[in-house]
Amino acid sequence: MLDQPFTIIEGGITAPEGFAGAAVCCGIKPESLDLMLLASNRPAAAAATVSRNAFRGAPTFVTQEHTADGRAQAIVCNSGIANSATGQQGMDNARKMAALAAEHLGVECIDVIVCSTGGIGQQLPMDKIQGGITQAAIRLSRDNPELLARAIMTTDTFHKMVSVQFAVGEATVKMSGIAKGAGMICPDMATMLCFITTDLAIAPETLRTALQQAVATSFNCITVDGCMSTNDTVAILANGAAGNEEIVSAQSAGYEEFRAALSYVTQELARMIVRDGEGATKFVEIRVSGATSWEHARRIARHIANYDLIKTAIFGQDFNWGRIAAAIGAADPELDPNKITIACAGITAWSHGEPVSFEEAQAKSAMQGDEILIEVELGIGDAQATVWTCDLTYDYIEENAGPDG
Amino acid sequence: MLDQPFTIIEGGITAPEGFAGAAVCCGIKPESLDLMLLASNRPAAAAATVSRNAFRGAPTFVTQEHTADGRAQAIVCNSGIANSATGQQGMDNARKMAALAAEHLGVECIDVIVCSTGGIGQQLPMDKIQGGITQAAIRLSRDNPELLARAIMTTDTFHKMVSVQFAVGEATVKMSGIAKGAGMICPDMATMLCFITTDLAIAPETLRTALQQAVATSFNCITVDGCMSTNDTVAILANGAAGNEEIVSAQSAGYEEFRAALSYVTQELARMIVRDGEGATKFVEIRVSGATSWEHARRIARHIANYDLIKTAIFGQDFNWGRIAAAIGAADPELDPNKITIACAGITAWSHGEPVSFEEAQAKSAMQGDEILIEVELGIGDAQATVWTCDLTYDYIEENAGPDG
Repeated sequence: MLDQPFTIIEGGITAPEGFAGAAVCCGIKPESLDLMLLASNRPAAAAATVSRNAFRGAPTFVTQEHTADGRAQAIVCNSGIANSATGQQGMDNARKMAALAAEHLGVECIDVIVCSTGGIGQQLPMDKIQGGITQAAIRLSRDNPELLARAIMTTDTFHKMVSVQFAVGEATVKMSGIAKGAGMICPDMATMLCFITTDLAIAPETLRTALQQAVATSFNCITVDGCMSTNDTVAILANGAAGNEEIVSAQSAGYEEFRAALSYVTQELARMIVRDGEGATKFVEIRVSGATSWEHARRIARHIANYDLIKTAIFGQDFNWGRIAAAIGAADPELDPNKITIACAGITAWSHGEPVSFEEAQAKSAMQGDEILIEVELGIGDAQATVWTCDLTYDYIEENAGPDG
Repeated sequence: MLDQPFTIIEGGITAPEGFAGAAVCCGIKPESLDLMLLASNRPAAAAATVSRNAFRGAPTFVTQEHTADGRAQAIVCNSGIANSATGQQGMDNARKMAALAAEHLGVECIDVIVCSTGGIGQQLPMDKIQGGITQAAIRLSRDNPELLARAIMTTDTFHKMVSVQFAVGEATVKMSGIAKGAGMICPDMATMLCFITTDLAIAPETLRTALQQAVATSFNCITVDGCMSTNDTVAILANGAAGNEEIVSAQSAGYEEFRAALSYVTQELARMIVRDGEGATKFVEIRVSGATSWEHARRIARHIANYDLIKTAIFGQDFNWGRIAAAIGAADPELDPNKITIACAGITAWSHGEPVSFEEAQAKSAMQGDEILIEVELGIGDAQATVWTCDLTYDYIEENAGPDG
């Protein structure tokens, strides 16, 4: 990352000035951390993006309401139950979670972001949630930030956090993010969550726009199984404790450093989610170029990324470029194969309307790597997009239909 | 089928008058039937629909050209190699297949429909194809029609054929269809093929419209893995040998009987393909009603059918209605959950914006059946659609990434 205007640092979500947190086991999941509280010691600019799913969870509605004014001060999140498809009681419970956190932290209820991840259609055990929030509020500290990253995990096999710092004028600004994976939740539903803290001073509207742009090219460009969750949420709190001159627009000094840092943090976390995809053995990057627009490129890249026959072939280490061709042709029937170039694992297999001959042994060897790059040039425009995914394996079936299914 | 204006009969694709066929092992696949020739002893009205995939195979282009005039007399089909993504040589080979069949049968080249199914990106061994066509033309007969159904199989575990007869005025008309499955071909690509013969006399334009309508509500309503093939083809030959007064429009006497028979034959074959989906252990029917249009209903039903988390849950016999809710919400984010009703295996789980309580034991038991019905009422219109699929299992991964992958 030599050319990036930021440096990677140790520390987690409480590294930025003014943030503290705690993780507890409130009892939704037996014997593991299942509730996290994160708070800023001063009001912060805030932005959040949530799932577009029509059946999205009650917490996503509360989070949207509570960040509508561009301000927030705390995040409360439980794992184990998604509080989604839970009707009016679910809405009441999500509001209650915010109110309980606000009461214990001494902040306004409207300044609390609420998230849940886990099984769909189950109601939250509010006595346990209440006990957990009470405990967590007492234990707030800047120590052991990895526990917060662990408390939001479901079927994730490792916790995901990344921290950076960058300069804005004289001020040193820190930013840190944690995320949980787009895998299945036992026994239910995938959800991607990401929380980012920074001590940057930034105007809410500028923060919101920057977050939307960062999400579009990070979390919205990954897929594990093509199944959109009901509870996906990405939230950022920027509390200004770094003391920089407030960033008020994309033209402000320091905006570019902030944008680059946010892009790095979100893309790194997104890649970690893919690497930890359920049952995944391979990390797959799909680059589509020569498209008419970024949306067009992303649509084709996502179709390739979600094509089960490609995901199983990659698991089997099979150089099966024909399935890539079929996926491209299915994604956009109007494309002209004569203009398309297809390469997999560095080997060009189709170009100028003809298959390109290659060494079988070389292809076989190339597919044995842990990372597989699929490159597609459409030849009809200048736009490009990159999407990340993983392979489809026996373990994915096991996790989603196995003995506990 | 008591209320249907046709009866199911014994016999296969050569049961209708004037048709004969042969299946041979030409050597593309070791030791199994891999080439089929089917011919009418007189010119026939013909129609065909082919894959919309931009990378569709060379034979689909030839088939389109050769049925453009609404007439054809023979079908030649090989399995083992799809002749898709094969460039100019592939086009030359597909035309050569038609020319060879025409020569041996004494018909016009433009009256031969050509199909291939198998691995993508490989060229056909034309010496073997030529030998196979020569052999098959010599052996044409009306006997053993199941061998024709076997010759087009790839990873199918059983051959698929269905035959019916119906009356048009004084004439008795026969119709028969064979199909191969939408599973993976070792080691490559899924393809669905269906050939239908009938001795009905019908005008080409009426035949074409009827076929399009039948395909829309049968083969276009099934999915095994959401992966559109490059070689899908459905073709029908109607040679008039039954001697009925020609059907010239949807208003002609006998059209309704014909339409019902064609609908039955195509839907039965489509269901057989799903039942024989790779690794399938369950047959799943998804009925979406209360939509704004048939297209809207089908889009949501297909999204449910292709949702890996639902397919794995069904394999695991898990009553996971939350994943169905998530799939509906992802398919159309504008839907209002308050108007939606969701039932699975006969048990209503969501209604009027609230989860509906049910007996765990009853739900568990209901999921153990071989056939699972998912019913979704959207509550915003009168349109409905039905889609068929199967579950996603270890054996699907095995077939597509296993030792031979």
